[in-house]
Amino acid sequence: MPTIVPVLLSGGSGTRLWPLSRKSYPKQFAPLTGDMTLFQAAAGRVAGPGFASPVIVTNADFRFIVAEQLQAVGIDPGAVLIEPEGRNTAPAILAAALHVAATTPDALMLVCPSDHVVPDAAAFRAAVEAGRGAAEAGDLVTFGITPTRPETGYGWLELSATPDGLAPVPLARFVEKPDLATAQRMFDAGSYLWNAGIFLFSVRTILAAFAAHVPDMLDPVRRALDEARPDLGFLRIAPDPWGQAEAISIDCAVMERAANRAVVPFAGGWSDLGDWQAVWREAGPDAQGNVLSGPATAIRCEGSLLRSEAPGLELVGLGLRDIIAVALPDAVLVAHRDCAQEVKEAVAAMKARGADQAESFPLDHRPWGWFETLVLGDRFRVKRILVKPGGVLSLQSHHHRSEHWIVVAGTAKVTVDGEARLVTENQSVYVPLGSVHRMENPGKVPMVLIEVQTGAYLGEDDILRYEDAYARG
Amino acid sequence: MPTIVPVLLSGGSGTRLWPLSRKSYPKQFAPLTGDMTLFQAAAGRVAGPGFASPVIVTNADFRFIVAEQLQAVGIDPGAVLIEPEGRNTAPAILAAALHVAATTPDALMLVCPSDHVVPDAAAFRAAVEAGRGAAEAGDLVTFGITPTRPETGYGWLELSATPDGLAPVPLARFVEKPDLATAQRMFDAGSYLWNAGIFLFSVRTILAAFAAHVPDMLDPVRRALDEARPDLGFLRIAPDPWGQAEAISIDCAVMERAANRAVVPFAGGWSDLGDWQAVWREAGPDAQGNVLSGPATAIRCEGSLLRSEAPGLELVGLGLRDIIAVALPDAVLVAHRDCAQEVKEAVAAMKARGADQAESFPLDHRPWGWFETLVLGDRFRVKRILVKPGGVLSLQSHHHRSEHWIVVAGTAKVTVDGEARLVTENQSVYVPLGSVHRMENPGKVPMVLIEVQTGAYLGEDDILRYEDAYARG
Repeated sequence: MPTIVPVLLSGGSGTRLWPLSRKSYPKQFAPLTGDMTLFQAAAGRVAGPGFASPVIVTNADFRFIVAEQLQAVGIDPGAVLIEPEGRNTAPAILAAALHVAATTPDALMLVCPSDHVVPDAAAFRAAVEAGRGAAEAGDLVTFGITPTRPETGYGWLELSATPDGLAPVPLARFVEKPDLATAQRMFDAGSYLWNAGIFLFSVRTILAAFAAHVPDMLDPVRRALDEARPDLGFLRIAPDPWGQAEAISIDCAVMERAANRAVVPFAGGWSDLGDWQAVWREAGPDAQGNVLSGPATAIRCEGSLLRSEAPGLELVGLGLRDIIAVALPDAVLVAHRDCAQEVKEAVAAMKARGADQAESFPLDHRPWGWFETLVLGDRFRVKRILVKPGGVLSLQSHHHRSEHWIVVAGTAKVTVDGEARLVTENQSVYVPLGSVHRMENPGKVPMVLIEVQTGAYLGEDDILRYEDAYARG
Repeated sequence: MPTIVPVLLSGGSGTRLWPLSRKSYPKQFAPLTGDMTLFQAAAGRVAGPGFASPVIVTNADFRFIVAEQLQAVGIDPGAVLIEPEGRNTAPAILAAALHVAATTPDALMLVCPSDHVVPDAAAFRAAVEAGRGAAEAGDLVTFGITPTRPETGYGWLELSATPDGLAPVPLARFVEKPDLATAQRMFDAGSYLWNAGIFLFSVRTILAAFAAHVPDMLDPVRRALDEARPDLGFLRIAPDPWGQAEAISIDCAVMERAANRAVVPFAGGWSDLGDWQAVWREAGPDAQGNVLSGPATAIRCEGSLLRSEAPGLELVGLGLRDIIAVALPDAVLVAHRDCAQEVKEAVAAMKARGADQAESFPLDHRPWGWFETLVLGDRFRVKRILVKPGGVLSLQSHHHRSEHWIVVAGTAKVTVDGEARLVTENQSVYVPLGSVHRMENPGKVPMVLIEVQTGAYLGEDDILRYEDAYARG
């Protein structure tokens, strides 16, 4: 029985869930509906018997987040392909197919977005299993979601027959996002399902489909993969040929043109969490229609979502109706629920004003851990820095600042001008302006230190790197 | 011509403007409508020719805030009376009258709340001058605000004649907060004004009125003042006799019972900023009815107040109508404007849950300056500490924590186990657990340092004080 290789598409940067989802750390990496992030849950859904290690397709900015989040849930990726730039789903899936074909040409591929919610993983795996036969027989299998409302925000799938259980049904056609009347008609008809963008096919079938329907895409993607550069466990796709591949979705490039298409109906619950309205709906509103999380208080509110995303941030709603309020220490969104789709517009307005919050978080993820600015004053900055076990910062110096480091957890190995020493909780180190220094965590637990910088210029770009374990510039 | 002694009542702790106004630092000390705080503006309105130095009545928690805010605007208080506990306005005004009588028995007293907005200070002073004659002649003069709407949230004054300019008119009676129909009738009648709680009378007149209408109050307040203890420039009223004075408003105790009453009509603009609705109104909504302050963005909003109270905190409103959103890094209020009066209830709910934000700010004012916690972790805490020029912290030690101090602005004099030294920008000091230490600012500019505490217990109550310049326990 051919193995199923999960392919997780994780390069998206959904901004409609701002301020929790930002370009630098988008929603698939956030724990939106539970303890696990959407990406971790997506990977977990397709792990276990019958599944090979997953292939992840992401971009350079997210590579260490992907690695860290998979490690945290004990999943070893088969490969992490780094797109030099996002060119929609077709080139990404083709690259994954070519990569899989090189080692397991008989495999099936299960292509999944990594930012959706599927609460019942077992039901999902049963649906995948129900599609196996058709996929092995050469069909392009897609999974259609049993609709629960006449949704105008999704594409729909018209089936050639009314579905019965999990049995695959031939696909009649794709329907673009409909108007409400059309959505209602499809919802009532019973033979229309939502298009979730989840696919199962054999590697041979999809490669043949690419060759038949978008033959010009094959050459640049193949070359981009042939010239790909392995880098610390990631596979960096070559930029020049990659940029020649048409930026197009798998639906437009292949699925809408192919004849060998089948749909497995899936009634086990699904959401794309496409906006805050969807998050509110999926979280299960209480009797008053409210959803609260974090330290939030609702008084005489109805139909509202109140999310505080920080333990020390009190959010109070008073007399609200159908309001979404999402509070972080650096950014707060308050929106009418009917305007949830328009959050993108607010993000664009902030970006135009030059507000960092439009795209970035105060907490900055790096390959060795993360840091955040606690306070930025006149001529000083205070950071909290966490270095993962084994993490090594670059060997560096600064022209404009001195640094005081105080270790508050774990043990650091600190090198200043060639002299190394171990520094542990409640010990400090002074790094004078101009000195060549490095910080690393030789221990088994995370090391946390407080860095106090003083100087006339404190930008992140005042750094001279001499050596870097992570091949950064 | 008798001098006018302003008496500013500043002991209130309005919670209806939470999260900007909290018990520990209430609205009169916040810059709600301009650069100056309401208290500073109130003091500035009654400073200058014709006015003596003001007498402030406040409580122990606010005494250093009062001193600091007056100093910042260059006003020297005649006296700062510290109430051991708030007992409403009558005892406070009586105490002020007795205090003034001791030195200037011929003076007039102008009693003002310190948390109101009067945009036109010159017009206000003209109204005060218009009341002088009546006050010198022995009237209890109150200032009535020309109403701009049928407000049900205020008490009203019924005049015995329709006012004409600033000429004092005898007061017929006080009207308690009315229902809407009554408010509309009074608004239409033209001979009713709002009661603003601002009074002008001679010291002799008010003392005679207290003796006539609440004779039992005289003895405890006089004794409490006789036994008052001078303390670093403040006058601490004695708690035991003070506690025997009836807790009652000046309106109920004196004004409603007296016969010699006159009202000066004031049409120059006034607000008690009693809730966020009032703040929205006073700020002057734009064409869409919105008021924005700080880094706030409004998209398709109407009639809404969006206030971000921190430079690094982006607040976005989207599709809102008649919503108040006030964001601080530790607390966010989102309320329908019609519910502005109910904010108190939200604060009570938070307090019941034990949330510090109900009553306190992260920034803690002390006589020597202030501090704030930047981050509280497991076994560590990072604080930013500002010490004013001349400020001296107590000589102290801790049982459970060590401290690292890094000076980032100004110069500190640091004493650790008897050894003193000067520490300046970019220098650090280590204070081991158990050592007896003190920090002071001997310089001419504020000293800022970052304190990193490590230890198993980091509560503010792990402190042994050996000496304290500010007579604290």
